[in-house]
Amino acid sequence: MKKHNFYAGPSILSEYAINNTAEAVKEFAGTGLSILEISHRSKEFSAVIEEAANMVKELLEVPEGYHVLFLGGGASLQFCMVPYNLLKTKAAYLDTGTWANKAIKEARLFGEVDVVASSKDANYTFIPKDYTIPADADYFHITTNNTIYGTEIRKELDSPIPMVADMSSDIFSRPVDVSKYDIIYGGAQKNLAPAGVTLVIAKESAMGHVDRAIPTMLDYRTHISKGSMFNTPPVLPIYTALQTLKWYKEMGGVKKLEELDKAKAAALYEAIDGSKMFVGTAVPEDRSIMNVCFVMKPEYKELEKDFIDFASTKGIVGIKGHRSVGGFRASLYNAMPMSSVQVLIDAMKEFENNH
Amino acid sequence: MKKHNFYAGPSILSEYAINNTAEAVKEFAGTGLSILEISHRSKEFSAVIEEAANMVKELLEVPEGYHVLFLGGGASLQFCMVPYNLLKTKAAYLDTGTWANKAIKEARLFGEVDVVASSKDANYTFIPKDYTIPADADYFHITTNNTIYGTEIRKELDSPIPMVADMSSDIFSRPVDVSKYDIIYGGAQKNLAPAGVTLVIAKESAMGHVDRAIPTMLDYRTHISKGSMFNTPPVLPIYTALQTLKWYKEMGGVKKLEELDKAKAAALYEAIDGSKMFVGTAVPEDRSIMNVCFVMKPEYKELEKDFIDFASTKGIVGIKGHRSVGGFRASLYNAMPMSSVQVLIDAMKEFENNH
Repeated sequence: MKKHNFYAGPSILSEYAINNTAEAVKEFAGTGLSILEISHRSKEFSAVIEEAANMVKELLEVPEGYHVLFLGGGASLQFCMVPYNLLKTKAAYLDTGTWANKAIKEARLFGEVDVVASSKDANYTFIPKDYTIPADADYFHITTNNTIYGTEIRKELDSPIPMVADMSSDIFSRPVDVSKYDIIYGGAQKNLAPAGVTLVIAKESAMGHVDRAIPTMLDYRTHISKGSMFNTPPVLPIYTALQTLKWYKEMGGVKKLEELDKAKAAALYEAIDGSKMFVGTAVPEDRSIMNVCFVMKPEYKELEKDFIDFASTKGIVGIKGHRSVGGFRASLYNAMPMSSVQVLIDAMKEFENNH
Repeated sequence: MKKHNFYAGPSILSEYAINNTAEAVKEFAGTGLSILEISHRSKEFSAVIEEAANMVKELLEVPEGYHVLFLGGGASLQFCMVPYNLLKTKAAYLDTGTWANKAIKEARLFGEVDVVASSKDANYTFIPKDYTIPADADYFHITTNNTIYGTEIRKELDSPIPMVADMSSDIFSRPVDVSKYDIIYGGAQKNLAPAGVTLVIAKESAMGHVDRAIPTMLDYRTHISKGSMFNTPPVLPIYTALQTLKWYKEMGGVKKLEELDKAKAAALYEAIDGSKMFVGTAVPEDRSIMNVCFVMKPEYKELEKDFIDFASTKGIVGIKGHRSVGGFRASLYNAMPMSSVQVLIDAMKEFENNH
């Protein structure tokens, strides 16, 4: 039976990316070798990493002065790399969820952190909007999509200082004005690649202004100067990333992807809002189009586990909500087809009719 | 034509590991999903990472009190993680090559570094032996195999203090007395897996004795307490690592692998030593059984490029030496069959006869 993969990450990738990766594991680029065992310095792989960086630049219209890097360690490593490289005295952070919170925790090791606003007391059901970004801070850090809570900042914020954004779970789901950011980073395992690589878009002129000594691997300048090849990069995840990027271009780019993503999310939110049994957890105006979080209304609460079991009979996997929210989370990343969203909507309706 | 993969890393993996990975990219463990898109928290992948850690423990007879971790960032990130976690006031390092040197550079950011000996002046052609390890240092760091220079420490050293070893390029090529080490680490892309995962064997009681604040991702205790799942681990590289480990067990374990590795290296060194044209670069007693470095004698020097071209007509790839040594480097990792080594030896003889 066909599976409908709603996992929050690692998560669904396009058939194009998966099939090409499977081929490359058997043989890569006519080399007679597997992508698993080819030197990262081979001309064939050098071409891959260069093309992948160029395609990111093209798809996101990355301006001059920025570098596209493919690093190891995950977005969690960026939580400390960002302040290591950019925090001189004070940084401003917006607390919109678990991951924002983790980023704040790391920044505090390096200097003063001004948390301009937090929706923690409301279990992060909304994105705070009434706050002032201190003009004397070194940067303003945001988490554009909150995977666990299903909220998202989709409108480019107005900031008097450069921004830094964790876009792990919604990058490539909309055009971004990269010039507003010193750093954009994201773990690849949602909209780009399998786990093991982190995409970083770094403004070169933002680097080199802190006094502290930075370990070589944590210094963005190391990776900028070596084109992500200071040490051995995660070869296969980068190869798969390139396949995803090619598919994105074929699909029509990030504007078109946003249109498709919005349509998928709208269909599912409409089903939730029209249901007697299910209810969304995030405030409507801040709803994520990547992660749709919903629960059962109190009177049906005891049926939550039954619904997951029922959905699995339709091939639906990965919809169990994070324990911080409970209920369900349907992740609708770029590679998710509308047809799978429809299978979920139909399952919800059928289950509701049965009870 | 069959390729004989002598790359120094990423490098040859067993057909068993490659074929099983190709299958898992298509479908993983009967889930109906690719290993590229499965949640790291799924029960199927949790079983993989647990089994992989257990197999490392079994193959290397890891004692109680040690944890096997699979991290991102490469061995280069370990160069700073080791002193971050272990260096209180002073650490001792043995300088046996480029990678040892890089590890020393990072340690200096965290405290006093006593480089007990170096063979740098001899272009690292040997492993220094006359030195005293300071008993008051926090640890003694060694690089067991020097990929670039083709030297190796194969005999367990006697140290009055706990050791830390970078075993990136010779782990699983011999039994190791793990109890002598606080940390053993290695980038996986030689004897274990594709690039993107770093194996760490860490002694839990060695942690927590430094005063400095450690960023969460750089603190071994983070990964120990979460079983390498604090953040999303590099899923596919870990899956391939498990396949390699299973194959190692099937092959008879590390003692048997050492026997095979020694036989392969002996055959190639014998061909080099018996040649009028080729000459080894490392002193015989310190020769690596993983990376065989050799050059052409001065009178044949101008034929080096021709030999690489000639070898490529036999399907031999990846034998160009690192620029620091020049000439040739044949990496004979565990997955390299004797038959491929024989193809190289035959090519050397044929080329020599032709000139």
